[in-house]
Amino acid sequence: MVETETAPPAVADTPTMRATAWLRSFEDALVRTDVAAAAALFVEQSYWRDLVSFTWNITTLEGRAGISAMLLANLPGVAPSGFRLDGEATEAGGVIEAWFTFETAVGRGEGLARLKADGCWTLLTALYELKGFEERKGETRERGAEHGAARDRKSWLERKTREEAELGYTRQPYCVVIGGGQGGIGLGARLKRLGVPTLIIDKHERPGDAWRKRYKSLCLHDPVWYDHLPYLPFPDHWPVFAPKDKIGDWLEMYVKVMELNYWSATTCKSAAYDETTREWTLVVDRDGEPVTLHPKQLVLATGMSGIPNIPVYPGAETFAGVQHHSSSHPGGEEFAGKKCVVIGSNNSAHDICADLWEHGADVTMVQRSSTHIARSDTLMDLALGGLYSERAVKSGVTTKKADLIFASIPYRLMAEFNIPVYKQMAERDADFYDRLTKAGFMLDFGDDGSGLFMKYLRRGSGYYIDVGASELVASGEIKLKSGVDVVEIKPHSIVLSDGTELPADLIVYATGYGSMNGWAAKLISQEVADKVGKCWGLGSDTSKDPGPWEGELRNMWKPTRQEALWFHGGNLHQSRHYSLYLALQLKARMEGIPTPVYALAEVHHTK
Amino acid sequence: MVETETAPPAVADTPTMRATAWLRSFEDALVRTDVAAAAALFVEQSYWRDLVSFTWNITTLEGRAGISAMLLANLPGVAPSGFRLDGEATEAGGVIEAWFTFETAVGRGEGLARLKADGCWTLLTALYELKGFEERKGETRERGAEHGAARDRKSWLERKTREEAELGYTRQPYCVVIGGGQGGIGLGARLKRLGVPTLIIDKHERPGDAWRKRYKSLCLHDPVWYDHLPYLPFPDHWPVFAPKDKIGDWLEMYVKVMELNYWSATTCKSAAYDETTREWTLVVDRDGEPVTLHPKQLVLATGMSGIPNIPVYPGAETFAGVQHHSSSHPGGEEFAGKKCVVIGSNNSAHDICADLWEHGADVTMVQRSSTHIARSDTLMDLALGGLYSERAVKSGVTTKKADLIFASIPYRLMAEFNIPVYKQMAERDADFYDRLTKAGFMLDFGDDGSGLFMKYLRRGSGYYIDVGASELVASGEIKLKSGVDVVEIKPHSIVLSDGTELPADLIVYATGYGSMNGWAAKLISQEVADKVGKCWGLGSDTSKDPGPWEGELRNMWKPTRQEALWFHGGNLHQSRHYSLYLALQLKARMEGIPTPVYALAEVHHTK
Repeated sequence: MVETETAPPAVADTPTMRATAWLRSFEDALVRTDVAAAAALFVEQSYWRDLVSFTWNITTLEGRAGISAMLLANLPGVAPSGFRLDGEATEAGGVIEAWFTFETAVGRGEGLARLKADGCWTLLTALYELKGFEERKGETRERGAEHGAARDRKSWLERKTREEAELGYTRQPYCVVIGGGQGGIGLGARLKRLGVPTLIIDKHERPGDAWRKRYKSLCLHDPVWYDHLPYLPFPDHWPVFAPKDKIGDWLEMYVKVMELNYWSATTCKSAAYDETTREWTLVVDRDGEPVTLHPKQLVLATGMSGIPNIPVYPGAETFAGVQHHSSSHPGGEEFAGKKCVVIGSNNSAHDICADLWEHGADVTMVQRSSTHIARSDTLMDLALGGLYSERAVKSGVTTKKADLIFASIPYRLMAEFNIPVYKQMAERDADFYDRLTKAGFMLDFGDDGSGLFMKYLRRGSGYYIDVGASELVASGEIKLKSGVDVVEIKPHSIVLSDGTELPADLIVYATGYGSMNGWAAKLISQEVADKVGKCWGLGSDTSKDPGPWEGELRNMWKPTRQEALWFHGGNLHQSRHYSLYLALQLKARMEGIPTPVYALAEVHHTK
Repeated sequence: MVETETAPPAVADTPTMRATAWLRSFEDALVRTDVAAAAALFVEQSYWRDLVSFTWNITTLEGRAGISAMLLANLPGVAPSGFRLDGEATEAGGVIEAWFTFETAVGRGEGLARLKADGCWTLLTALYELKGFEERKGETRERGAEHGAARDRKSWLERKTREEAELGYTRQPYCVVIGGGQGGIGLGARLKRLGVPTLIIDKHERPGDAWRKRYKSLCLHDPVWYDHLPYLPFPDHWPVFAPKDKIGDWLEMYVKVMELNYWSATTCKSAAYDETTREWTLVVDRDGEPVTLHPKQLVLATGMSGIPNIPVYPGAETFAGVQHHSSSHPGGEEFAGKKCVVIGSNNSAHDICADLWEHGADVTMVQRSSTHIARSDTLMDLALGGLYSERAVKSGVTTKKADLIFASIPYRLMAEFNIPVYKQMAERDADFYDRLTKAGFMLDFGDDGSGLFMKYLRRGSGYYIDVGASELVASGEIKLKSGVDVVEIKPHSIVLSDGTELPADLIVYATGYGSMNGWAAKLISQEVADKVGKCWGLGSDTSKDPGPWEGELRNMWKPTRQEALWFHGGNLHQSRHYSLYLALQLKARMEGIPTPVYALAEVHHTK
């Protein structure tokens, strides 16, 4: 019958009904502690990414075996319940997407499931608050004024002033965050709202100086929708790519209005953990005054770009001009008419070359290995636009939703999801790439063609988001020496591996950074640095990201092999989103909530 | 038939259909310039409040005659069109509420209509942007980074630094705002986003000091939902009643991140308008440096509470203790054990009495005339809760929507709308009011029982939002002398009209403020002050608000009898909302858009 063929699907077949049914089966299996039944609800090649709700870890369980193992170990303690679909489920390309909420014994979580016909393909579960320790906001916000009259009550300013005077002296912070850039500040705000006494220390004079002190043309390479800090989004006129000093001012104001305890002009001289008292001893220099701190938890938020990497070239010490790492480069003003050589070909190298060229310097870029280039506009449109753009905001993808969608893609699948995006990029910008390679530039799209973001995750380097410098390279305005290395530095020149000798008044080492555990070596000990191992990278077995496969970024925002030592960092998006999970882990420990860590990562590399 | 009796209304009878039909008839009449037809669409006792969209004024047209007169004068120039319902209309108590948008020849507007069965009862029309001069936000926001490379381009910081160095010296601001409290700052932000070169000058050392320097226990009396500044709402943990120093910090950061041109430690010495060049000459003292400014527009945002009112009592000059106006009162710290007399019984008087009592002073309040008291919690619940509360936010009443709903109530109806609210308040808090009157306190609810907000609009005084002091008065902890006036001040006492002599070490004159045009007298001339006349007040012919009926607050946010002179102020809600209309009026004038002012108010009172 014709009617049969064109009849609408049965009601139970709507995405929402199917998602509801799956969620009910899943909850039933979990509540019955029927691990086999729960695992059977997933497809063979499935991924469950958990952000501290089931595992007190940031971990991705792969396949039914991985899922079963975790549930066997953790299910009784987690006691999940109350799974509820959040909004209508949607379907595209045979995959249903369903948002949901749930509870555990100690907290409330949210998640996103992708369901195929025969089971769950990807599952994200993420804790968002601890029961009994919810942030005070909206209806539960503080009153501010205490109505009624009471003799000798203290004003807000008096209480704030006293807290500032006491914290770190007569009263110890529960947590110390070393590094007060966007990472430390965003985490500090979350800890403040959770009532975790925290001290952020930073070497600069003012919050925001880490941005202000960079070369003057620097702007964020990521767009505004990607860059919000927690709680206080940028107003809607904020520029797409904020200039560094404007970001500096925003961070400074954020510290003030979020009432963070922030010690400027303070450096950490040493840190040691006492396994018996379970307490750190930190010696810091607060603007000349030595202070000893005893926090229970220590967070290194010193920048994912750890400690500057400066290759040792023979003769460098004889160089008569100016030489420095890109992180110390002040900008091009003083180098008009000078001969400048920039070693490196990633973001900083390109930015600095363009800045020097704009100031009338004679600039040569030394490209030692191939680099991925993505034009900013194309990148925004193809790679970020769906989640972080005005278009996304208009279609209801809030920052929070975008962050969770982003987090819901297991890293194992992310590369393959990205390959078609970068194929499209290569096609759209074919002329541009053609001009660039004709100028001798060594171009790549990653070992497997998965492009920029995977390079960022795997190695934190190897790319440039083009905001203009590539045209200067293509046209020869920025001179290029590619496929060479430096063999020697002389008082007034650099000798390259192809025999070229480049006259130089300035050498900029845009040669990247070491792993963040270098900071642990510097501040704590080499032993602790080796114990926690390399930070960042997925173990993808691609260039500069040796295996074995980790499935998550090493050591970031999650427990490490050193008790009470944490690493926080990443770009503004990562700092914003993952600071939530780090803050919840710290709060839970402070409140004595059991936090058994599932699958604490093995250490395979020390740097 | 039963079916007929219970049948649903015909489709054309839904609120949305009826509102759409009304709006279409209204637009048809306007487009045909058929004034009679347009006026006939209103009920006899109707009110059309316009915020600079039809009248380039803030004005309420009353009745068909008032509406006809305006349309006859303005319709051809305004050229309204494109009326569209915005969302579904709703009906309650026989009145349909319908949101809509429209255009004029030069701008875009929004509005809210209340329709009765036989026509429109209240209509609000409000301009929100000028065509071709829209604020850059969302999709049209600035890029920030200018992609590509260009020699000698300036960074954001360089451009900002140059602007700061030039404005007021080599380049004249279009507008100068005197007074950098929340009013001047919010207006400054709107002008910034509209590209109107503006300089805000303020006498204090830092933005926010006007709050910081008040007595230390001061908190906002209005709740957070009422207090947001434009563009950058408080985060959702912000306290309900923010302490003064916290607001001070917020304002300081707001000035910074909104990039306002703000001269601190600057006072205006004189101002004169040249009717020929149509330019002001302002002499200001910028932290010791005399600077002459030549703006085209001058805004006095010196606080709606103008210049302190200090009654002249015989013998005041002989007083041996400390005496000052409430605005200069530093707080109770230094008055423990002292005999303190506070003259007045409004907000400041109560706050200061409680603060002195909390610091252990012996306090007497001198109540000269009756006062309205509203308990804060009751006020929030009954009077503000529907529009400004967590409950309102949750039910979709955004700040913008709340502001427009508030603005849509014509002042003529507002008193009668308020009477039942305060009747309910009197019932709910009957015990409280009973204790208070038993202690001798002279209580009122306004001449017509319309309560606090009407007193605020009519006279800007005569009430206290109770946050605790009233219980101290009721219990006698704060001593009360009511129904008396001061007849003489002696070196160590105050003599009252009932013959009582109160020993005094401190006298606080919590005796209110003069009209804002007092600032015009002080800074410009008495002649100009008299020409513009009294500010604030509705002409309600109730106590301290002499008639004739004005229908709007005198001189506030709208053209005055002195060309290029404007008054801005009010509480945080009013400053936020009405700064939009003031900013649009200034922007239109800067861009040379014709701004014929309809019904410029007559001056009936000079102070």
